[in-house]
Formats: sequence, structure tokens, C-alpha cells
Amino acid sequence: MAFSERVRQILSWYPSESPAVLTNLARLMNSGSLAGTGKMVILPVDQGFEHGPARSFQPNPAGYDPEYHAALAIESGCNAYAAPLGFLEAVAGKLCGEVPLILKLNNSDSLAKIDQPCSALTASVKDAVRLGCVAIGYTIYPGSAARNQQYQDLRDLILEAKEYGLPTVLWAYPRGALSKDGETAIDVVAYAAQISAQLGAHVIKVKPPKDFIEQAEAKKVFEKYSIPTKTMADRVKHVVQSAFNGKRIVIFSGGEAKETSALLEEIRGIRDGGGFGSIMGRNAFQRPKTEAIALLKDVMNVFRG
Amino acid sequence: MAFSERVRQILSWYPSESPAVLTNLARLMNSGSLAGTGKMVILPVDQGFEHGPARSFQPNPAGYDPEYHAALAIESGCNAYAAPLGFLEAVAGKLCGEVPLILKLNNSDSLAKIDQPCSALTASVKDAVRLGCVAIGYTIYPGSAARNQQYQDLRDLILEAKEYGLPTVLWAYPRGALSKDGETAIDVVAYAAQISAQLGAHVIKVKPPKDFIEQAEAKKVFEKYSIPTKTMADRVKHVVQSAFNGKRIVIFSGGEAKETSALLEEIRGIRDGGGFGSIMGRNAFQRPKTEAIALLKDVMNVFRG
Amino acid sequence: MAFSERVRQILSWYPSESPAVLTNLARLMNSGSLAGTGKMVILPVDQGFEHGPARSFQPNPAGYDPEYHAALAIESGCNAYAAPLGFLEAVAGKLCGEVPLILKLNNSDSLAKIDQPCSALTASVKDAVRLGCVAIGYTIYPGSAARNQQYQDLRDLILEAKEYGLPTVLWAYPRGALSKDGETAIDVVAYAAQISAQLGAHVIKVKPPKDFIEQAEAKKVFEKYSIPTKTMADRVKHVVQSAFNGKRIVIFSGGEAKETSALLEEIRGIRDGGGFGSIMGRNAFQRPKTEAIALLKDVMNVFRG
Amino acid sequence: MAFSERVRQILSWYPSESPAVLTNLARLMNSGSLAGTGKMVILPVDQGFEHGPARSFQPNPAGYDPEYHAALAIESGCNAYAAPLGFLEAVAGKLCGEVPLILKLNNSDSLAKIDQPCSALTASVKDAVRLGCVAIGYTIYPGSAARNQQYQDLRDLILEAKEYGLPTVLWAYPRGALSKDGETAIDVVAYAAQISAQLGAHVIKVKPPKDFIEQAEAKKVFEKYSIPTKTMADRVKHVVQSAFNGKRIVIFSGGEAKETSALLEEIRGIRDGGGFGSIMGRNAFQRPKTEAIALLKDVMNVFRG
Amino acid sequence: MAFSERVRQILSWYPSESPAVLTNLARLMNSGSLAGTGKMVILPVDQGFEHGPARSFQPNPAGYDPEYHAALAIESGCNAYAAPLGFLEAVAGKLCGEVPLILKLNNSDSLAKIDQPCSALTASVKDAVRLGCVAIGYTIYPGSAARNQQYQDLRDLILEAKEYGLPTVLWAYPRGALSKDGETAIDVVAYAAQISAQLGAHVIKVKPPKDFIEQAEAKKVFEKYSIPTKTMADRVKHVVQSAFNGKRIVIFSGGEAKETSALLEEIRGIRDGGGFGSIMGRNAFQRPKTEAIALLKDVMNVFRG
Repeated sequence: MAFSERVRQILSWYPSESPAVLTNLARLMNSGSLAGTGKMVILPVDQGFEHGPARSFQPNPAGYDPEYHAALAIESGCNAYAAPLGFLEAVAGKLCGEVPLILKLNNSDSLAKIDQPCSALTASVKDAVRLGCVAIGYTIYPGSAARNQQYQDLRDLILEAKEYGLPTVLWAYPRGALSKDGETAIDVVAYAAQISAQLGAHVIKVKPPKDFIEQAEAKKVFEKYSIPTKTMADRVKHVVQSAFNGKRIVIFSGGEAKETSALLEEIRGIRDGGGFGSIMGRNAFQRPKTEAIALLKDVMNVFRG
Repeated sequence: MAFSERVRQILSWYPSESPAVLTNLARLMNSGSLAGTGKMVILPVDQGFEHGPARSFQPNPAGYDPEYHAALAIESGCNAYAAPLGFLEAVAGKLCGEVPLILKLNNSDSLAKIDQPCSALTASVKDAVRLGCVAIGYTIYPGSAARNQQYQDLRDLILEAKEYGLPTVLWAYPRGALSKDGETAIDVVAYAAQISAQLGAHVIKVKPPKDFIEQAEAKKVFEKYSIPTKTMADRVKHVVQSAFNGKRIVIFSGGEAKETSALLEEIRGIRDGGGFGSIMGRNAFQRPKTEAIALLKDVMNVFRG
Repeated sequence: MAFSERVRQILSWYPSESPAVLTNLARLMNSGSLAGTGKMVILPVDQGFEHGPARSFQPNPAGYDPEYHAALAIESGCNAYAAPLGFLEAVAGKLCGEVPLILKLNNSDSLAKIDQPCSALTASVKDAVRLGCVAIGYTIYPGSAARNQQYQDLRDLILEAKEYGLPTVLWAYPRGALSKDGETAIDVVAYAAQISAQLGAHVIKVKPPKDFIEQAEAKKVFEKYSIPTKTMADRVKHVVQSAFNGKRIVIFSGGEAKETSALLEEIRGIRDGGGFGSIMGRNAFQRPKTEAIALLKDVMNVFRG
Repeated sequence: MAFSERVRQILSWYPSESPAVLTNLARLMNSGSLAGTGKMVILPVDQGFEHGPARSFQPNPAGYDPEYHAALAIESGCNAYAAPLGFLEAVAGKLCGEVPLILKLNNSDSLAKIDQPCSALTASVKDAVRLGCVAIGYTIYPGSAARNQQYQDLRDLILEAKEYGLPTVLWAYPRGALSKDGETAIDVVAYAAQISAQLGAHVIKVKPPKDFIEQAEAKKVFEKYSIPTKTMADRVKHVVQSAFNGKRIVIFSGGEAKETSALLEEIRGIRDGGGFGSIMGRNAFQRPKTEAIALLKDVMNVFRG
Repeated sequence: MAFSERVRQILSWYPSESPAVLTNLARLMNSGSLAGTGKMVILPVDQGFEHGPARSFQPNPAGYDPEYHAALAIESGCNAYAAPLGFLEAVAGKLCGEVPLILKLNNSDSLAKIDQPCSALTASVKDAVRLGCVAIGYTIYPGSAARNQQYQDLRDLILEAKEYGLPTVLWAYPRGALSKDGETAIDVVAYAAQISAQLGAHVIKVKPPKDFIEQAEAKKVFEKYSIPTKTMADRVKHVVQSAFNGKRIVIFSGGEAKETSALLEEIRGIRDGGGFGSIMGRNAFQRPKTEAIALLKDVMNVFRG
């Protein structure tokens, strides 16, 4: 498949990467029904680890089975399927690349009370290579006092992943020395996107930002320069600008399961602000399969439109 | 010995493993009197380390001798014998594979007061290789604030073990930020099984769950979807489902020494819920040898039946 | 280009370095409009990471784009451009050495509350090599109780960098067990320069010192020997003397954005005290491009004059 | 020298060891005047490090000199001489194996107040190899909250030592979450012996146990099964049984300097309980040399008898 | 130069060292005006790092320049010059061995407040090799709760240094769980010398001990055996005895700058007690050069006499 102009343009923003890394980044953009558009919708399923099995899969018990999610990603036309080690090992040997896989290298369960937010490393770059993945995934918590450990681990992983030609998808969830609202404040989400880009992430995943400003110093600047934050499109625009003026792929999570029309409106805001796509877990796999596929196709249509 | 259909089916759930790992997993399933059934009964003897020698072995002093336990495992027809480094070193050079061995790589004694539950690494993958073992064993304490260290150590050990073709048997004992009842609550045990599977364990060992729900968020889901938890069979079914919809081998411990009929009733519940077997230490080696063999054979008959 | 006498003299102060390290040190001195003078003006852009994107780039939104800064450094005739991993990766593959690059290996964001000042390692020496940089950059916080970790990491990085022929530019910002004024006190800044030189830094970057003495023991000495500290030139002279009697390259930061005439007066003080140059970020990139270039040229003229 | 039946029997209890490790274990048993009996008396001199020089050596100032102790071990017919790095380096190059040497790899001084009992690593396996030693020595403090670090360090050292054919002599001193009496309680010393054996020690060194039970859970078992603890022989018997039913070499320390007849009575108790020997420092080197040699010969005679 | 009998004797106390290590130890003893006497005077200049530049160098501003100290060591006939990385790098490439160099591998500044005394590692063995040094230097703080880290780092460094034929000079400064007087108490300094020797140091540097006993247990022994501590010669004798009965090279620091006659009296005490020499920094480099050379020659004459 000849690459589209848009895909070529996006690849041009990563001029220092090896052909191998760019090849896998291109695979991510050239899979599924959004192939070639430069937009992407990814199915992530780490909730079994993060929230527990019943909370994650009982609403649609087919999801207890690791094969279900891979099938859902393929049938709905997602660009990729992202999951922890166990879920990917349970399918990778059968799929052999039928859908691009992203191995999440760290995860946090909700049984333990950890002093400072910090996920555990639960898989390695070598696992991603062994399973035929196209990228590694990693979660940082900007705002955590355990930040140094997380950034330093990430630095090592990015470097090792590059040696195998794998780009990095970074989940950036501000948490720690922040108010609850502050975790999704526009200034904080934009800052998290900037940090992620500076750390060398190839694809950045943040939560949809809210119309709230957390940091006093940032507030002065937002007011002085009248940076618009009213609409989702306004805020997404600022976040995308904060990721190297739009030259890094920034995608947005769907968050908690919600009603379809509210979800699609949010997706339109993300698209209008210049977001590169969505990563949608619970809103997809907790619905019955046909509903889930219909929803994912609607989301893809928004991004394509 | 031609593999049974059931063994082939179970091996098919691990499609990403190397032939070497699958070979050792098959050895585990094709040993002892349950060979070929896909069920397993394992004799574990780490109580000398975990609880002290007199508490463990005085009820049947033959057990002070490391050769006793290997003989017990062989004569009773267990699938494997699991123990810490010292006990295995004392017999491995004589057995040369007469019974499959599982080397427990970490252990915790009860002399020290440790702030956060965390076993000490007491043996290495290279020891397991040197001793001719078919698998490594490791204990995690989900719920411990030392979780990250444990998961990360495990990740390294699993990867190293795979390089030598060794699968991993994971002991998952929730402990730490949990109530005493919560450690064996149905939601918590199921969550521990899910975490274990996601971490890449090949065989998961949990305690028989109780009819109690620890986490408020989980409770809402159990009630909303009326997940049955009354009988042991109900609860085991949920745990097995939580381990990749039954596509991971989940076995259950016998716990404290108890009376034979109560024990066999528990075993029948485990079998009816779809459990893959038992790992039974004190209930076996603290009885006189002939009684212990009789009991283990009864247990195997339940699983075969 | 034949090396000037001054460049040869400066290189002679590093008699134990390999030809490869001296070659890159010479490249730093022989680039831009100050080439050959032994003076240097460097453009650093790490504020997006350290202070957040809006605070850094909204005053001149062109700065959201990583290509802007590289262009600014080239067009204004800076000796080098220093930035974190992401910003350099976004341009290095296009520039191919058009301007000398310095990769900052550690950074600190302002979202987290860290107990002891300590930046996170965010890039590696191998990244600097891969991106064709002429030097690595690193920040220490003398005065921090996390000092040992920082000095030890630095030691490893300097040694590794030398293996690739890369010299080290050290940002030395006293912080921790110091009063707010103490962080830029003349005795403390001079001490930081001495520590930096002893740690093996090739180029030392400190803040312009104030006419204030923090340490009681130092105060006695300043008074006993009447060390002059009234003017910026006096103070810079003491700092430069404290860096091996002027035999290490010491440059000074511009600090917060300020008015042009005040800035140029400060620069003249630095020059008169024997400072080797300036490293100027916000005062440059937060101005419109033409203004920024004019200012940087003025600064260079001061140092050349 | 043809091996005695007893030595052959003891070696048979280590069936998983390489010929190289067994060879050095045999050297330990076939040296000195107890050669071939399967009993051993070892001279350890680490008190200079652990208690300070004057307290250790002033009672017999010849002991300030490292050559004195090696001569004492040789002339008295000890099986081996154990000491920290410095003392062994001061003699090894002259002795060239005249007496088997055991290098103690960790030590603790009494100047520092350490939060949790944990010796410092003060020598390495490579040092033991370089000095021609027949074994490494290591101290653990079961009961310390720093247990994990100690057991894990030991695991690494044992494995590395085996690569060079060196067995491990383990000093097991319960300390930490224990009462003062509990440190030498019969249940605790037996537990320490069990832990040591499980950790893979080849020779285990404990203190003579007292007629006291520390742990409530253990007390129940000692009472229920009427385990005898009245005499030293009773207690030593339980400790030896707790070390793999007598299949690990367990030796006992002499403790503080004491009067000769009391000491010999203790030695007879150790012998009658099945102890494999003694490790006797202060009681030997703090006496004048002729007295020390006479005492050590008396002790050897007890064990031989 | 044929070795003197005394040098041969001293070398004979290190019978386990390689020819390479002994060669460098001999170089240390065969340099400067005390060559061949077995005595040594070393010039150490780490005060710029430890106390700050003005406090160290303003009394004699020539000392700001790293070339000054090397020249002072050469012209006065010192056995060696010891300094941190930066100072040595500034001269090593010019000197090419004109004076033996000792690279101090760790240092502590006085800006930070560190919880437990522990110097930072600021250079590596590879640096010492690269700079043509004859030995490494390292500082321990016996009495610090960070003791384990320091001893373990030292162990690794000594072993690595030996691989390159470099002996170790150990600065032993008791600090931490001690009274202020206790840091130089005779029992504590002697204990520090013993620890240093046991850790494998080749040359031990302590402070001149005071007539004070810190530890209650030691006090009993000093009184019982009437160990003399009145004069400096008495105390030095006990320290030297505590370092393997005089079979390790023990040298003494000059401490704070003081008046010449008091200093020379202290030196005579050190000599009379059997001390092997002095290491004298501030008392040398803070005087004008001719005075410093005169003083150093006087000190050497005392030791020679």
C-alpha cells in the first residue's frame, strides 16, 4: 500500500528515528479502517489488572476471555490492540500480526495502597519483541513524587525499544501533588503532553481536559494571553499545540463508560481540536459485541469525517 | 506417551510459548497418577522455612528429613514436588527427575517483622536449571505496598526462566492493605488470579475463596449482576473465569491441617467449580506416611472423577 | 579553520582529555558568530519541561514548535542549542550538525513535589551520540540532600560521555539546605563553580551571583581578606577564580525574562568579571524572532568587545 | 589420603553439588587433628572488626598481629581459620594453603548505630578465590527487618561461590524482632538452622541454644509433643534435627570468653547432642598461646571421643 | 634505584598482593625526599570541594590554581599529591608522572545537610587509571548509619583498583553515632584503623588521637590493662598496633591550620609513636609557597630523623 500524503507528513515529524521505528509507526497508522488517514482508534484492555475482573468484564462476560478483545479489535477495524503481558501472550501466537499489538509494560492494581502513584513494571521490551508487537506502552504519573523513577525507567525502555525498532505509546495521567480536578485541568493535561513529547514518546495518550486551571503560575499566563478553554475543541487544540505544535501524535481516552451520544459529542470535540484519535476501552468492551462494533465504527467515522 | 486431548487443549491456551516451555508444562501434566487428565496435585514443602521446623515437622518427625518428602510425592503419585533451594538440593542429585521438581525462588520466615509483606529471593533461575526442575515457583502478595518490587522481580524471573524453557507457578496470596477476611474474599482471590494471569504465570495457585466481598466497588458489581458466591463451587467458578475465562491453570491450596472429610468436601467444591487441582502441604506431610498417601490418592480420585 | 590562539589556550587547560573530547570542545568554541573568541552564547530551551508549555511559549507562540528554536539558534549565530531529548529528536535528523547540539540528560518538571531537589534522568549518553550532539548537559543541585545520587550519576555520565568523545556542560543550581537568597549568594555560587570543576565539568553554567553571603564560615573569610563583592564584575571575577583560577569555562544564565537594557548591563558585568559567556533562554525565545536575534547579537557584541 | 567412611557419608548428603564444591568441603573435613572424623574445630577471628582492637587483642597482645592467628590455627590442629579480608590478605600469600582459609564476606562494627541489624559486605567471592580459600563465610541475622537484603545477597554469593567450587559457611545469629533471651532460644536457634539449610548453606554455625522458647506458636508445639529442652545435649539434638535431620553440618560457637571447665562441659553437651564441632574465637586467642593450644586440643579430644 | 631494606620489609607485609599493586606501593614509598625511608608525607588538596574555594584558597590565592598544588608537592619533595578528579585532570596530562598522584574517589561538600555522613562518589577507578595515578583514595565514616553503603562501595573499588595494579589509601574519619570528642578518641581512632586494615586498605589515614575514651566497653579494657594514652606518642603507638601490629602503613593528618611549632611538636609525637608519616593540606597550601616548602621539609626531617 502506497503511503498517503498525511502519513508521510506525520512520519516527517520524527526525522531522527531509524527506518525500523518509522516502519512500525507507519504500521500503526496504516491498519484498520482509519488506515492512511493519520487518525487512529486503539482498543486498550488493561482494566482487568487495574480495576479487577468482575468490575471490568461482568457487564459483558465475553470479555473474561482474552480472545474476545483481539477479535473485537479486528472486527471493528481498530488500528491496534493494547494490553498487559498475559492478555497478549494468550493471543499473539495465534494472531501472528492480524492486528497490531501494543504491549503495556507497566500496570497498577487497585488492591495495594501505594504511597506515591507508581505502576509496577510487568513486562519487558524483550517480551514485546517476542510477541511481534508494533509498539510498547508505558504509563507515567506526572505530579507523583515517584516521578524520577518513572521517567528514568521510561528512558531506559524507550532506548531499548528503539534498538528493536519499536516506537513508544505513552499514557500520561497527572496524579499526586494535584487536586482531583487538577488531574484533568487544561494546564495540567497540556503540561503532561509537553513532558511526554520531551521524554521522547511517539504517541501520547491523555485524558480529555476540563475547563479548569490548576497551577497559579499557569493561570496568570492563560489569562494574560486569553488562551481559550471553553469548549472541548479549544482545550484539545491547546493540548495538541503543547505537544510540539501538533507534531506529535496525541490521542485521547474515553474514560468511564458513558452514554453513546455524550461519547460521540466528546469525540467530535477532540476531532475539531485537532486530536489524532481515541483510545477506548470500557466504552467498547463492556457493551455487547455488535453494539461495541457499531460504536467504534461511529467513532472512526467522526475522525474520518 | 501420546498426549491426551485435554492436555493438548490446555497447551493450546499458551500459543505464544516456545516448544521448550510447553514441553515442561506438559511434563507437569503428564506425571503421577493424574497424568493426562489436565488435573494436578502438587506436594509443596516450604513450611520449615515459613513457619519453623518444629511447627512443621514435629507432628510427623519423618518430615525433618528432606528425602521423606520426595519419597512421599513419588509414592502418592503427585504431579510434582515444590520446595525451597535447600530441600531440593538435598534430593535432586539422587532423583534425577524421578518426580518433577518446582524450585520456589522466594520465601518468607516468621521470625522477622517486615513493614510490607515481601518474601526474600532465596534461589535463582540458574539454580532451578542446575537442579533439573520443570518449573520455577514464586510468591506475590497482591495488596502489599511492596507490590512493585515483587511484580518487577517476577517479570525478570519469568523472562529468564523462559530462556531455559521453564514455566512459572505463581503463589498469589493477597496481603497488606486488606482486612483479615479480605485476604480470602471472593473478589480479592479472583482479582489475584487475574493479576497472576496478566503477569504471565502459567500455573496459578490461590487459596480457596470465602463468601465475603472486600472491595466496595466490587461489591456493587457482584450485586448488580448477581454473581453467585454461596458455594465453594460457585466461588471457584468465578476465580477460574477470572483467570482468562478458564484458559489458565488455577489450583487451590489446602491451607491449615484439617480433618479428612472436611478437606475432601472442599476438594469436591474445587473440582465442581472447575478448579484444575490442589497443592497440599501440611495436610499431607504432617500425617503418618500411609495416611498421607491414602489421603492424596483420595484427593486425586476426586479430581479424576 | 585554523584555531585562534585563545582557543588553543583554553584547550591547553584540559591537558588530560582525549583528542576526541577536545575536538568537540573546540567545535563548541568555533561555531556561530563568536567562533574563535573563546566566548560563547548558548540558546537553552528546557522551560517547556521545567515550567510548562503555556508559561514558556505563549508569549511567543512560535516557540511551541521545536523547529523554531533550532532556527533561532542558527540565525542569531549562537554557539550551540541545548534542549531535552524530545526537542532535539524533533530537529536533529534535519539539521545534521548545522548548529552544535547539547542534549540535556536530566530535567525536572514543576508538577511534582519532590522531597529533595533532584532532576529525573530523561535521556542517555547514547541518545546524545545518536543525535550527533557535541556535548551532554546535566543539572546538579548543590545543597540538596540528594546530592550523592546526583554527583554519582554525573560521574557515570561524564565517564561514558568521554568514551564517545563528548564533553560535559554542567548546570549548577544551589538548592536545598539554603535560604532563598542563599541560592544565588556569591559564596554559594562560587562554591558551586568549584564543585562543578572538581566533578570534571568542561563547561560550567551558574546564575549571576548576588551581593550576599550565605555561609557563616565563608563570611569570616570574605571579611578577613576583603574579597570585593559590590559589583557584578567583582562577583563574577570571584566565581571565575573559584573555577580553577579561570581555567574552566564558566558561563552565566540570563534568568527570568527582563528588560533589554538591564539585561545588557548584566552581560557587561559578566564580561568585565571575566565570564566566558551567557546561556540565554527565556530572554531570547519569548521575544518575537527579529527582536530575539537583535538581542542575541547585542549580547555577542558585548562579549566580543 | 583415602577418605573415611564418615566423610564419604557426609559428602553423600550434598548430592546436587559439583565435584569442585565437594572437594573443598572434603578439604575442610580432612584438615587438622580431627581430619577424617567428620567433626571440625574452626578458629574465627573477626572480633577486631566486630568489637574493636583493644577489647579483642589486649588480653593477649600477640593477637594484634595477623600472623599470630594463622600460626595458632596451624599449631593447634584446627580444621580451618576464618577471618575478614585484611587478616587473610596479611597471611594468605605466605601460607599458600598451609591451613584451610574461610573468608568472611560481611562484617559489622560496633561504632555505628544501624536501624536494622545488617552486616556490611566487606569482601567478595573473587577475593576468596584469589586468596586460595576453601570456603566463603557469611553472617545472616534472621529476625532482622533487613532480612530480605541479607538473604538475597547470600543467594547471589552462594551461586557465585559455587562457580568457583567454594562451599558456604553460614553464621546464623537471630536478631531484630526478638527478645534478648529469644536470640538464643531453642525454637529460634533451631529455626535459624532450618533457614540456613534451606538457603543452601553447606556448614551452619549457630550459638548454643538456651532452655527458653520465644515464639508462642512454637511453644504450643514443643509442649504438645514434649520436645525435650532441659540439657544442652537435648537442645543441640533438636537443632541438628532441624538442619535436615542431621544431614547438614552444624557447628556451635563458644561465645564470650569463659572459664575452661565450663567451656568443656558445654562442648560435651554439643557433642552428645550430635553437633559437628565448634568455632571458637575469643576463648582461644585471648589466652596465652600454650594455654590456647592446650584448650583447643582438649576440645578436639571431646569431639573425637 | 635498588630498594632499601625498610621498603622491602614493608612490602613483605602485603604478601597476597600482585606484583603490580606492590610496584605502585613501592612507587609511593620511593618518591620525594623521604624515598626509601618507609616514611611518607603526602599533600592532599580536597578542601576546595569539602569547605569551599574562598575558605580554602583565599589565605594564599595562588591555591585557586590547580597547577600550584602539583608544583608545591614536587618542589617540597612530597611522596605524592592527592586530590579530587577536577584538580588532577587539570595537571595529569602535563605531569605525566612527575609526582605520584592519588585520585580521591569520593568527596563531601558542606552545602548540603545529609542525614547520615556519607561522601558522594565523584570519580572512578577508570579515571585513576586514565590519569596515570599510583593509588586511589577513599573516605569512610565509621560510626555512620550509612556505613554499609560505604564499606560495600569501597570493597568494589578496592577489587577493581587491584585489577589495574592500584593500591588504596583510606581516609578513616569516625563520625555519626559518636560524641564530638569521640570522633578523635583514642579507642575510636584505633578502632577505625583496625576496620580500615580489615577492609583491605594499603595505606590508612587517621586523625591524631586525643587522650579521651568514647566507648564504655573499651574504657574497661584500657583501664584493666593500663594501656597508656597520655602522650601523643603513646596514643599513636596504640593506633599503629591496632593496624595489624604495625604491619599496615598508618599516616596522620595535620588537621586545621595551626602555628608551626605546635605542628612540629605533634609531628614528633607521631614519629615517636611509630607513625609512618603525615598528610598535610591546609597547613601547607595556605602558607606562602616558600614558607610551605620550608615547613614541609621540616616535617620530612622529623620523620627522617
